[in-house]
Amino acid sequence: MSWIVPDVAPPRSETFRRALQRQAELTKPAGSLGRLEDLAARLAAMQGSGRPSLERVWISVFAADHGVAEEGVSAYPPSVTREMCRVFVAGGAAISVLARQIGAVLEVVDAGIAEPLAGLGVVDARAGSGTANFTRAAAMSEAQRDRALAAGAEAASRARRYGAQLFIGGEMGIANTTSAAALACALVGVGPERLAGPGTGLDGAGVRRKCEVIGTALRLHGEALRDPAEILRRLGGFEIAALTGAYLTAAAASIPVLVDGFIATVAALLAVRMQPACADWFLYAHRSAEPGHRLVLEALGGEPLIDLGMRLGEGSGAAVAVPLLRAACALHNEMVTFTEAGVSGG
Amino acid sequence: MSWIVPDVAPPRSETFRRALQRQAELTKPAGSLGRLEDLAARLAAMQGSGRPSLERVWISVFAADHGVAEEGVSAYPPSVTREMCRVFVAGGAAISVLARQIGAVLEVVDAGIAEPLAGLGVVDARAGSGTANFTRAAAMSEAQRDRALAAGAEAASRARRYGAQLFIGGEMGIANTTSAAALACALVGVGPERLAGPGTGLDGAGVRRKCEVIGTALRLHGEALRDPAEILRRLGGFEIAALTGAYLTAAAASIPVLVDGFIATVAALLAVRMQPACADWFLYAHRSAEPGHRLVLEALGGEPLIDLGMRLGEGSGAAVAVPLLRAACALHNEMVTFTEAGVSGG
Repeated sequence: MSWIVPDVAPPRSETFRRALQRQAELTKPAGSLGRLEDLAARLAAMQGSGRPSLERVWISVFAADHGVAEEGVSAYPPSVTREMCRVFVAGGAAISVLARQIGAVLEVVDAGIAEPLAGLGVVDARAGSGTANFTRAAAMSEAQRDRALAAGAEAASRARRYGAQLFIGGEMGIANTTSAAALACALVGVGPERLAGPGTGLDGAGVRRKCEVIGTALRLHGEALRDPAEILRRLGGFEIAALTGAYLTAAAASIPVLVDGFIATVAALLAVRMQPACADWFLYAHRSAEPGHRLVLEALGGEPLIDLGMRLGEGSGAAVAVPLLRAACALHNEMVTFTEAGVSGG
Repeated sequence: MSWIVPDVAPPRSETFRRALQRQAELTKPAGSLGRLEDLAARLAAMQGSGRPSLERVWISVFAADHGVAEEGVSAYPPSVTREMCRVFVAGGAAISVLARQIGAVLEVVDAGIAEPLAGLGVVDARAGSGTANFTRAAAMSEAQRDRALAAGAEAASRARRYGAQLFIGGEMGIANTTSAAALACALVGVGPERLAGPGTGLDGAGVRRKCEVIGTALRLHGEALRDPAEILRRLGGFEIAALTGAYLTAAAASIPVLVDGFIATVAALLAVRMQPACADWFLYAHRSAEPGHRLVLEALGGEPLIDLGMRLGEGSGAAVAVPLLRAACALHNEMVTFTEAGVSGG
């Protein structure tokens, strides 16, 4: 790989320890804010600050097309990838609404959709015009994979220059649950029947077809699926590679990452396999209705914040969960201690 | 009972149906927003509007003391009820921080703490100076119960005059998980060992003691625990009665209610037993770490929004969950349809 996996430093353990100490002194029974206490302390440690803040949230949605879509593995035609990018930018998609709602910066990155979208405010970072059909060949060349990883790294660098206190990556790509499931099979070592799901809305026959398609790909690439970079090249998508590059770069820049659903979590698993130290920088937003998500979360030891049956992608689950992290920060920063308040301790 | 249980009309089913129809037309795979779709449609039906809104949120925290505290069933001394009311008003408690964070109105109502808190901006609606110890007598008289129910009803009426689009009730009262567990035993018909938990932080021996105390009370009041109003009078607290009155009155005023944790959910169960029609107006914010909460939620068929191990009370779990409902509304109101966006359908 010519794209260089960055070094990642751990969050500050001393800040974490002091933050938990503060939580124990606030006017509430010890531990009564549940996971919000640990989340505030983790964010404090990542931001290297006793008063963590999530005012500046950055969302990059990476879009790309998939050669494997020609195998009929999605409920929607491939043209929808491109069409939805227009809706993201125009402000009418779920992620557009949610980004406004939480006051986040939203950018849409063309990591390789079939036909370029010119003049729309989409960031041009194309690694190709869609991947190759991975049931017949590797999804991408080494150069393409490295270009897509770099596209994500550049997005995380823009987030860093903005001063982002949280990075969210979203994705759009018709057929990308097929790619993500195939990647997860190779990374976790289980069969497609445990990882393939309905995606945007396949019926039972559709899911069986998707399993067969993934099975064909796994047999074709077989022994070559040895390391994460090669697994990504053979079975991935440009937007998934971009997510992976973005997560690694955000972690290297000490920016906390809030990982979205199934596809984003597969990208997070790729990132952790490439650079185990980045795991400490990841928070998991939600448990998707896509059945394979559970297994990938388990492989990462990820404990999602919400479980509302969402399965939309785009970064939407992460955007919905941001206010929970903001509540954790506000409680940590603004509550008074028993001593300050003159309240009898437990 | 001289306090009159109000009539409650159902939410508008036609608005609900049309809202779900709109959800199916928005630019996303059908059903991919999971529970957020149904929540938006339910809020639309409750508010009688195709475009539900939760800009104006009202929080009433009811505080009261409990005679049963003298049995040593809490990790904190009873003086903490009063002390925490000061912190609520001064802005340093969890609910104070969360109310600011979500831009909600917060009022603190003295429903009967041991000593009145004068001149602090606390609403005076005292039904007594703490309840009687219910292991020896009924917790309150009929007149006190009705005054506490009315205290809650008045809070809901203030919320209605404000134009509240969501009502949240919180509680503060040392020993009130003991009262709530005793009420739940009588309402659900199970023993205290399934409903008593650590509350603010009892150890194993403390929980066993709490079970014994509840058992004693259940034996004392025995056959008298026939109807919800009498169960409330014998085993309840003034703040729990106020919550019950508030929930019933909010439902009667067509204001959606977001129910908080264990104690609040017991009050919701009392309200539903008094007036089954109010169940349609209740949403459940979170699953508390208090083990009895699960059983009470089940008795109501309540599906909480979050499960973060919180167990603080004060309305804090509900306040944390408000942004999820706001996200549901924003998505419902602001996303464009496939037709509007010119995107190919599935």
